[in-house]
Amino acid sequence: MKILTINGPNINFLGIREKNIYGQITYEEMCKYLKGEAEKLELDMDIVQSNIEGELVEYIQGAYNKYDGIIINPAAYTHYSIAILDALKAVALPTIEVHISNVHAREDFRKRSVIAPACIGQICGFGIYGYVMAMIGLINYYKGL
Amino acid sequence: MKILTINGPNINFLGIREKNIYGQITYEEMCKYLKGEAEKLELDMDIVQSNIEGELVEYIQGAYNKYDGIIINPAAYTHYSIAILDALKAVALPTIEVHISNVHAREDFRKRSVIAPACIGQICGFGIYGYVMAMIGLINYYKGL
Amino acid sequence: MKILTINGPNINFLGIREKNIYGQITYEEMCKYLKGEAEKLELDMDIVQSNIEGELVEYIQGAYNKYDGIIINPAAYTHYSIAILDALKAVALPTIEVHISNVHAREDFRKRSVIAPACIGQICGFGIYGYVMAMIGLINYYKGL
Amino acid sequence: MKILTINGPNINFLGIREKNIYGQITYEEMCKYLKGEAEKLELDMDIVQSNIEGELVEYIQGAYNKYDGIIINPAAYTHYSIAILDALKAVALPTIEVHISNVHAREDFRKRSVIAPACIGQICGFGIYGYVMAMIGLINYYKGL
Amino acid sequence: MKILTINGPNINFLGIREKNIYGQITYEEMCKYLKGEAEKLELDMDIVQSNIEGELVEYIQGAYNKYDGIIINPAAYTHYSIAILDALKAVALPTIEVHISNVHAREDFRKRSVIAPACIGQICGFGIYGYVMAMIGLINYYKGL
Amino acid sequence: MKILTINGPNINFLGIREKNIYGQITYEEMCKYLKGEAEKLELDMDIVQSNIEGELVEYIQGAYNKYDGIIINPAAYTHYSIAILDALKAVALPTIEVHISNVHAREDFRKRSVIAPACIGQICGFGIYGYVMAMIGLINYYKGL
Amino acid sequence: MKILTINGPNINFLGIREKNIYGQITYEEMCKYLKGEAEKLELDMDIVQSNIEGELVEYIQGAYNKYDGIIINPAAYTHYSIAILDALKAVALPTIEVHISNVHAREDFRKRSVIAPACIGQICGFGIYGYVMAMIGLINYYKGL
Amino acid sequence: MKILTINGPNINFLGIREKNIYGQITYEEMCKYLKGEAEKLELDMDIVQSNIEGELVEYIQGAYNKYDGIIINPAAYTHYSIAILDALKAVALPTIEVHISNVHAREDFRKRSVIAPACIGQICGFGIYGYVMAMIGLINYYKGL
Amino acid sequence: MKILTINGPNINFLGIREKNIYGQITYEEMCKYLKGEAEKLELDMDIVQSNIEGELVEYIQGAYNKYDGIIINPAAYTHYSIAILDALKAVALPTIEVHISNVHAREDFRKRSVIAPACIGQICGFGIYGYVMAMIGLINYYKGL
Amino acid sequence: MKILTINGPNINFLGIREKNIYGQITYEEMCKYLKGEAEKLELDMDIVQSNIEGELVEYIQGAYNKYDGIIINPAAYTHYSIAILDALKAVALPTIEVHISNVHAREDFRKRSVIAPACIGQICGFGIYGYVMAMIGLINYYKGL
Amino acid sequence: MKILTINGPNINFLGIREKNIYGQITYEEMCKYLKGEAEKLELDMDIVQSNIEGELVEYIQGAYNKYDGIIINPAAYTHYSIAILDALKAVALPTIEVHISNVHAREDFRKRSVIAPACIGQICGFGIYGYVMAMIGLINYYKGL
Amino acid sequence: MKILTINGPNINFLGIREKNIYGQITYEEMCKYLKGEAEKLELDMDIVQSNIEGELVEYIQGAYNKYDGIIINPAAYTHYSIAILDALKAVALPTIEVHISNVHAREDFRKRSVIAPACIGQICGFGIYGYVMAMIGLINYYKGL
Repeated sequence: MKILTINGPNINFLGIREKNIYGQITYEEMCKYLKGEAEKLELDMDIVQSNIEGELVEYIQGAYNKYDGIIINPAAYTHYSIAILDALKAVALPTIEVHISNVHAREDFRKRSVIAPACIGQICGFGIYGYVMAMIGLINYYKGL
Repeated sequence: MKILTINGPNINFLGIREKNIYGQITYEEMCKYLKGEAEKLELDMDIVQSNIEGELVEYIQGAYNKYDGIIINPAAYTHYSIAILDALKAVALPTIEVHISNVHAREDFRKRSVIAPACIGQICGFGIYGYVMAMIGLINYYKGL
Repeated sequence: MKILTINGPNINFLGIREKNIYGQITYEEMCKYLKGEAEKLELDMDIVQSNIEGELVEYIQGAYNKYDGIIINPAAYTHYSIAILDALKAVALPTIEVHISNVHAREDFRKRSVIAPACIGQICGFGIYGYVMAMIGLINYYKGL
Repeated sequence: MKILTINGPNINFLGIREKNIYGQITYEEMCKYLKGEAEKLELDMDIVQSNIEGELVEYIQGAYNKYDGIIINPAAYTHYSIAILDALKAVALPTIEVHISNVHAREDFRKRSVIAPACIGQICGFGIYGYVMAMIGLINYYKGL
Repeated sequence: MKILTINGPNINFLGIREKNIYGQITYEEMCKYLKGEAEKLELDMDIVQSNIEGELVEYIQGAYNKYDGIIINPAAYTHYSIAILDALKAVALPTIEVHISNVHAREDFRKRSVIAPACIGQICGFGIYGYVMAMIGLINYYKGL
Repeated sequence: MKILTINGPNINFLGIREKNIYGQITYEEMCKYLKGEAEKLELDMDIVQSNIEGELVEYIQGAYNKYDGIIINPAAYTHYSIAILDALKAVALPTIEVHISNVHAREDFRKRSVIAPACIGQICGFGIYGYVMAMIGLINYYKGL
Repeated sequence: MKILTINGPNINFLGIREKNIYGQITYEEMCKYLKGEAEKLELDMDIVQSNIEGELVEYIQGAYNKYDGIIINPAAYTHYSIAILDALKAVALPTIEVHISNVHAREDFRKRSVIAPACIGQICGFGIYGYVMAMIGLINYYKGL
Repeated sequence: MKILTINGPNINFLGIREKNIYGQITYEEMCKYLKGEAEKLELDMDIVQSNIEGELVEYIQGAYNKYDGIIINPAAYTHYSIAILDALKAVALPTIEVHISNVHAREDFRKRSVIAPACIGQICGFGIYGYVMAMIGLINYYKGL
Repeated sequence: MKILTINGPNINFLGIREKNIYGQITYEEMCKYLKGEAEKLELDMDIVQSNIEGELVEYIQGAYNKYDGIIINPAAYTHYSIAILDALKAVALPTIEVHISNVHAREDFRKRSVIAPACIGQICGFGIYGYVMAMIGLINYYKGL
Repeated sequence: MKILTINGPNINFLGIREKNIYGQITYEEMCKYLKGEAEKLELDMDIVQSNIEGELVEYIQGAYNKYDGIIINPAAYTHYSIAILDALKAVALPTIEVHISNVHAREDFRKRSVIAPACIGQICGFGIYGYVMAMIGLINYYKGL
Repeated sequence: MKILTINGPNINFLGIREKNIYGQITYEEMCKYLKGEAEKLELDMDIVQSNIEGELVEYIQGAYNKYDGIIINPAAYTHYSIAILDALKAVALPTIEVHISNVHAREDFRKRSVIAPACIGQICGFGIYGYVMAMIGLINYYKGL
Repeated sequence: MKILTINGPNINFLGIREKNIYGQITYEEMCKYLKGEAEKLELDMDIVQSNIEGELVEYIQGAYNKYDGIIINPAAYTHYSIAILDALKAVALPTIEVHISNVHAREDFRKRSVIAPACIGQICGFGIYGYVMAMIGLINYYKGL
């Protein structure tokens, strides 16, 4: 089972960016950790990141016919990118939305997810462990749980 | 580690209620399954349910000084119960919000969580497995992950 | 044919409560009158009342597999109880919404019915006779009119 | 007792128009049925229809001093015709608002009734039988029920 | 100088319609009075009335190249008839908006005038004398006051 | 009959201020013209002006038991001064609201009159002649027209 | 193939009405031109116009079982006529919405089309040529393009 | 003079709940203090509390014909309980609304009181002393001050 | 302990102004009464009034370093004066907001208090006795209750 | 005459993406078809596509002084890209907006076109033929039709 | 070149008022500093301050024909004073809006500037140095930069 | 002291783009001018520009640990780019927002700055000189003014 994890803008600044909200671990450390966890779960997982909305669209399109599922943290674009919503609908892969912080407990504009209608579920507030939860979520999805 | 899982209105009708959205499993089966999973994770977990907003408030109050964390699925009350929000703030226990369906992909009124500001995180769209994710989330919380 | 009539908060104060709006007849008198009318229509009808939102949810749940239809006047809860909406959807019985006064001609907040999407129809403004109309409505529903 | 039943735009297309919502019976059949029911109730009832807002206003004005009550289904105009509201207020006859479908369970713009403040009550969702309910409603009104 | 006075829906029910708001005088009496006042002001004035929005549009169109100014009381249509707005813009005659009651002191929906952007001015609250004020307003307009 | 005409902020800048909207005549010329017109109508009229909201309140209070009616052009304060509304309600004198330009054809914020509920009527768009219309309006008011 | 072109209020004033927006050609010239273009495209096309909302409803109803498609420019009624929307849904013919000007680049209230949900597509901003585009659109529709 | 003091959800958690907002004193201590103060004022006062909206409705109903006035702190229900509003209107007793914190200086949703239209006055921000103020308020009310 | 009581616009018209809302007592009588009550409470209290927003700002500024607390009834300015809010924040004295009528039970625009975030608490609906309650509130504040 | 056709995000996924909405033809097939149609119309047309908002801005800028007109389908960016609006205004070329589906009959957020104020007209709902309509539209534009 | 700097309410409390937002320097020190800076820039600058909206209007009017430009910090009035907007439009002098704090990063109500449409530009967030920036801005304006 | 000036979409079209709003000077001329001014102020300043939102995010990220401050004109992205807001918060450098035109005097959507909460201040309406003001603003910031 092949999974693509897609990270949006400023996630590459983890460990630098507002640590009280996003934690101390760096982006590289997170990637390494997540790949390790994926391996334990017997998932073949790639991780990509981009700050550019249209590149995220292209990563999603690129997953078509190549991956069995998507884990996506579109960061700021979550709240306004209809382009990402449309891309997710276009490829129609099982997708899980992850946020490191609990977006529902922050500014009002962070509570709205434009992409949710194209996703199985949403996980937020569990730091980088949320991605691991999403991996298990995709495994369960294919098991029909 | 002692956890209280609190379920809101109509969750007792699982397996009867809108199966295309909430699944086929009954409430009793779910409780049994969740208790089994909790045991595997070495958690001492109780499960309660009520259709009455004020009884949910009282279950939360009753957790004060007795439990180490709360997993709550307030169902319909999620969207308007300031009373539950206030109860969660009052007891100040680590709390995780779970929804069986992906509320962010449904009617607009289901997207707003009034209780989110009193929670660590939110998990939705993973069926009853979302509760297990929440258990792991609480364990991680105490581990400082 | 078995019908459950469910009354919400303050309906038990009929004859006391704002008589210019709700009329002079008391709750007991109304129940007696409605039972008489039901009998004439050859309906087996029970009437329950509660001021507690969650108990109304439970009356609805209790109708599952026991009654052929519901007549409901959720009173104040009409305007905000997603819990009652969800309960009605869960049991999926033919349901008719009744209001004693013409709610569409009163305060703005009384014009919105949160529960309407789970009902066959709405009757308002006809005093307690609205319940009799609803009985006939349920009979017609089963006749396929 | 003389009653005028007034039907608004597209009601003359019953039996052709969106049958899943409005039913199979044609306008002519409905009129015949309603007249028969009126007769049984010893009501002298006329039925008129127009697609033109201003003609509906004129039908209402024409009822002044000629009829004892009005049953009105203003169809689409329900939602924006202040002219019809004003006409109903001008003649000040007891009036009942009828809708064939349950407008409160459809698009948001169909939930608002501009004319309700000039009506005794509203009946919706009972198909053409709603008109019969309205007849009984007017009879009760004059009986002081 | 030739003026057309156009009255909208239910104005023909003056003297019958909500007398506490619109006064006791009948429509015929008003027309006679206004024609007398026009004569005193040496105006050649015609008065028309219709309950039909589209006929009001046609009266406006008919004024093109035939009249020097329009006095209009579109009654209920004031608040939603873009068709009347467009007609007034099409003929581009000096136009004055009159309301018998003070619409700005009544329901919120009566405060918005959709047609105002095509008018010189608005007069409201002065009963039928408002039409006379409007006549003088048109005379002044041509005098360049 | 004694009348007080009250002008709000920037009206003293007539003839200087945005002439395309407010005209060429100066404030002093206007006052002279209006006093002349008042005399012709056999009114004893005083005119005051202030740029200060609270002073306008005091002019209104000062009219109590001294004047038979008020003509007010509160200019910018029209749109937000609840203090002026309260003052007009306090003295309860017949009051007419005048605007030199047609406020309903300008920016949205100029369409709302906060003070209208305390006035007999509103006149706008007739330049300074609007004040004369208002004088006649007050005379008619006392004549019971 | 038989097509009905329906024009709404004030379109009969083309060539007179706001020429900078709607152009110099008159309504009669437009009709002649469109009929010529229809002929070239081997369409049997009738053109009707009315300023009355309800007559437009009737033209639409009249097309039922008589025409293969409708081209409609409801002009001002585009923005509020639920009656026209309902009529179009009732006859369920392939319909194309045309506007002479680019309504999306004008006042906010002209951006909303109430009738769009009953149409195949919308063409605006191309002057009277938009009708020809719509003819081709209907031909393509039947060709299955 | 007999008074009923009714407390809503989470008030029983005083002294535990968000002490920076609600203070250090416990619910039991508060009750004792308030009874003492009532005695000084020669009031016969009972105090009840419930976390259940419908029970609060019943406490209010129970006061009918038994008490001379109500002091109510509906806590979270203040902001959405139309059921409590209706109950207060039903019993029509002089009622005073009390809040321990200054709700108007907190979150927006705490500023709206749904029950205010059924109350004499509102007191907020004075901690538990607010209840004593309310007692005096009721005494004054009966004195006609 | 020195207190400044500040009254806003139209309060000087007490006893004249809408007596059904504000009572029969005159402003002078109220001042005398309040001074008497202050004396009983051993408070050194001054009372000022102005109809001018900016003068109220200056009274607040003037209290800086001279008074120990402020009681303010900004009347109409309550609902829009950010200037008064800023002044209260600037001087940072303990302040209590008083309204003679229950503003939360009146027009919607009277429910919003712009100044509340700078106040300890709000008292409304108790007539002039509300000021006495506020005096006690300030005394308690300094006692640390 | 040289034209640039610009396609926005996910248009390159035609034939894969939601076929019920966007059709079966692939992006490459569409490009070939459109180039053929352009040739027939004697237009020199280039087609570009990008998923990146800023690249679309650059394609528009690149058209400056090189092309005579633009046909643009900004897809998802239609609804929020002020950057594209600004680019179109900057180059000030005749531009036509095309949408494959009838955006006015879909989700609310698809009804708003942020770029319309910079376009001649909008065509939507005609599948890929809409681009051909736009070509003819540009030809007509230069012919002055 | 003669410039008038106008300061609104509570600016005279600089150095006292919320120092974390507005800084430690007093109003007198600021005036002295600004006059010194103006001198260096060879500007003849007067500074006035008022807490009264109408006096600010008068300072603006007084600048007519006397000054070459205005620097204005209307403080709280920025957000609601249409009177100041109208005054600025009346005198039509080049005007620059200054705020000491970054109003766009504070409460929502501080983000809206009612007066901006009458100003060249806005400077905020630079403390009292913003006034010096504004001086340079006016100099540049006259240089045509 | 090292500063990075970042320009958003379409700023590279200065001198071409809507000259009445943005002026005649080209982007290259502006850059040269600004570098000259920076030199005079002894600032080491780089200037970058991109039309791509994500590249602007990357320029901001690239400034981390390399520059002492940022001057940013995000152009169209100002109004919706939460990604840029997050990037600015991530690097936490002193940042000043500049706009060439007075955005607060233009369309409503240009009045909202999404990025303001991450900036020291905002300067708009001063043409390209605004950037020089921002340079001085940063210098002052480090001087602690």
